[in-house]
Amino acid sequence: MSIGVFDSGIGGLTVLKEIRKVLPNEKIFYFGDTARVPYGEKTKELITRYSKEIVEFLLDKEVSAIVVACNTATALALEELKKTFKIPIIGVIKAGAKTAINTTKSGNIGVIGTKATVNSKRYEEEIKKLSENVKVIAKACPLFVPAVEEGILDGKLVDQIIKTYLDDFEKEIDTLILGCTHYPLLKSAIGKIYTNLNIVDPARETALDLKEILEEKNLLKNDATKNREVKYYVTDGKDKFKEIGIMFLDENIEKVELVKL
Amino acid sequence: MSIGVFDSGIGGLTVLKEIRKVLPNEKIFYFGDTARVPYGEKTKELITRYSKEIVEFLLDKEVSAIVVACNTATALALEELKKTFKIPIIGVIKAGAKTAINTTKSGNIGVIGTKATVNSKRYEEEIKKLSENVKVIAKACPLFVPAVEEGILDGKLVDQIIKTYLDDFEKEIDTLILGCTHYPLLKSAIGKIYTNLNIVDPARETALDLKEILEEKNLLKNDATKNREVKYYVTDGKDKFKEIGIMFLDENIEKVELVKL
Repeated sequence: MSIGVFDSGIGGLTVLKEIRKVLPNEKIFYFGDTARVPYGEKTKELITRYSKEIVEFLLDKEVSAIVVACNTATALALEELKKTFKIPIIGVIKAGAKTAINTTKSGNIGVIGTKATVNSKRYEEEIKKLSENVKVIAKACPLFVPAVEEGILDGKLVDQIIKTYLDDFEKEIDTLILGCTHYPLLKSAIGKIYTNLNIVDPARETALDLKEILEEKNLLKNDATKNREVKYYVTDGKDKFKEIGIMFLDENIEKVELVKL
Repeated sequence: MSIGVFDSGIGGLTVLKEIRKVLPNEKIFYFGDTARVPYGEKTKELITRYSKEIVEFLLDKEVSAIVVACNTATALALEELKKTFKIPIIGVIKAGAKTAINTTKSGNIGVIGTKATVNSKRYEEEIKKLSENVKVIAKACPLFVPAVEEGILDGKLVDQIIKTYLDDFEKEIDTLILGCTHYPLLKSAIGKIYTNLNIVDPARETALDLKEILEEKNLLKNDATKNREVKYYVTDGKDKFKEIGIMFLDENIEKVELVKL
C-alpha cells in the first residue's frame, strides 16, 4: 500500500513534508511535473490533461490514494480527476478552507495563489460551504513562485514584491491562506511585514485529511517499524530538483528518476 | 514561400516585429510553445526535443527558413537543429554578438538572459569568434520574464528587480546585450537607471541576417504589392497570447490557432 503525491514541480514538497510527519510509515511516490511547470497560468483543459497523465502514471505504481499537492491542479482538475478515477484523490483547497474558518476572528479571509487558482474561485466556494458568515477576497501574486524558486526568501527585493501585492489587500483581512504550495517559504517574510496577520498553510490539514481517509478505508499500513521511503519522479531537471528540493523538504533527496509523459 | 518563427511563448514577438519591418512582404508562421513556457530553466535535452517538434510542425507549413526567436532555444538547440534539418535556420545570438561588438567602446560587454542561456556560454563563444579583444561577462536575471509577463514594466518594483540583478554588474560594462526576447520590454526601465549604458537588442540584426540569407538563396518573394499576413499557433492559452501579445508586437493579433504537440 502506498500514496501518490503530485505537483506541477517542487512546491508540493511542502505538503509532502507534512504527510511524512503525520504518516511516517507509508511508502510515498512523489511526482513533480518539472518539464511543464508552472501550471499557474495554463488553461483548465491543459492542466486537466496533464493531471490525468500523472494520475495514470501513479496508478501504475499501485498507489491506494492520491494527494494533489498543487493548488492550481486542485482548483482546475480535481473534480474531473475524481470523476475519472476510482481511488481516493484529495486536494489542498478544502483543507485550507477549513483551517482558515477555524482561524479567522473577524470573518475576513484572504486567499493568495496563482492566476489560475484565483480565477477559479474554488477557495471562495469551499469556504462558503463551511460558513456563510465570512467574507473572502482573493489575489494572484505571480511573482511569488519565481522569487521562491530563485531562493529569494528574505531581503529588500522580496519585501518589495510582497508589499506590491499585499499592502492594500492585508488591510481587509485577518487571515491569509497561502493558496500555492510554494508560498509557505515566504511565510516568514510575509509574517515579518504584517505582524497581526494569521497565515494559514493548508499542508498540515491536508495531511490530516489524508490520514482520516486512509483510516476510514482501512488502507493504512500497520507496520510501524520503520520510516518508509519516498520515491521521486520528475519530467525534467533531476539535479535542480534535488538542489532546490532540500529548501522545501528540510531533508536530502537522494534519488530522483526522470520520466517522459 | 514563407518563414517560420518560433519561441517558447510570447517573447519572440519582439523579433517578429523587426522581421515584419525588414521583410513586410513575406508570409510568416509564428509558433509560441505557451503550454511548455518557460524554457529558461529546462535542460538541454528537453529544449532540443521541444524545438525539434516545433521545427517539424513548421516544415509541414512549407516554410523556407526558420528563425529561432528565443535565446534559450538558440543557445541550447540551434546547433542540433541545423544538423537535423536542411532548410536555413537562424538564431538570435550571432546577431546579438555582432551588434554588441559594433557598439562597445570599452570592449566590456555584458549579457543578461535566462539561466539556461547564461550557463550555455554561447554569447561568449560567438563574441570571441568576432573579436579576441573584448571582455564578456554574463548574468541570469530569472525574475525579468515573469515581471514582463505581468506587465510590470515601470515603477518601484521593476526598478528594485533591475537593481538587484544589475547594480554591480553594470559597473563592469559599457554595452549590455538583452539576451532574452522578453527583455526589450524592460529596455526603457533599464536605460532610465543606467543612463550611460548602451543597450543592445538582437532582434533588428536577426531580421537583417534573415533577409540576407533569403536574398542569397533567392527565397524572397517578389510580390511587394501587399503586406502579408502572420499566422499564429500556440500550444495553450489563445486568449492570453492575444492579450499580452499586443504589448510585444504593437499591433493586434487577430487569430490564433491552438495546436497540440
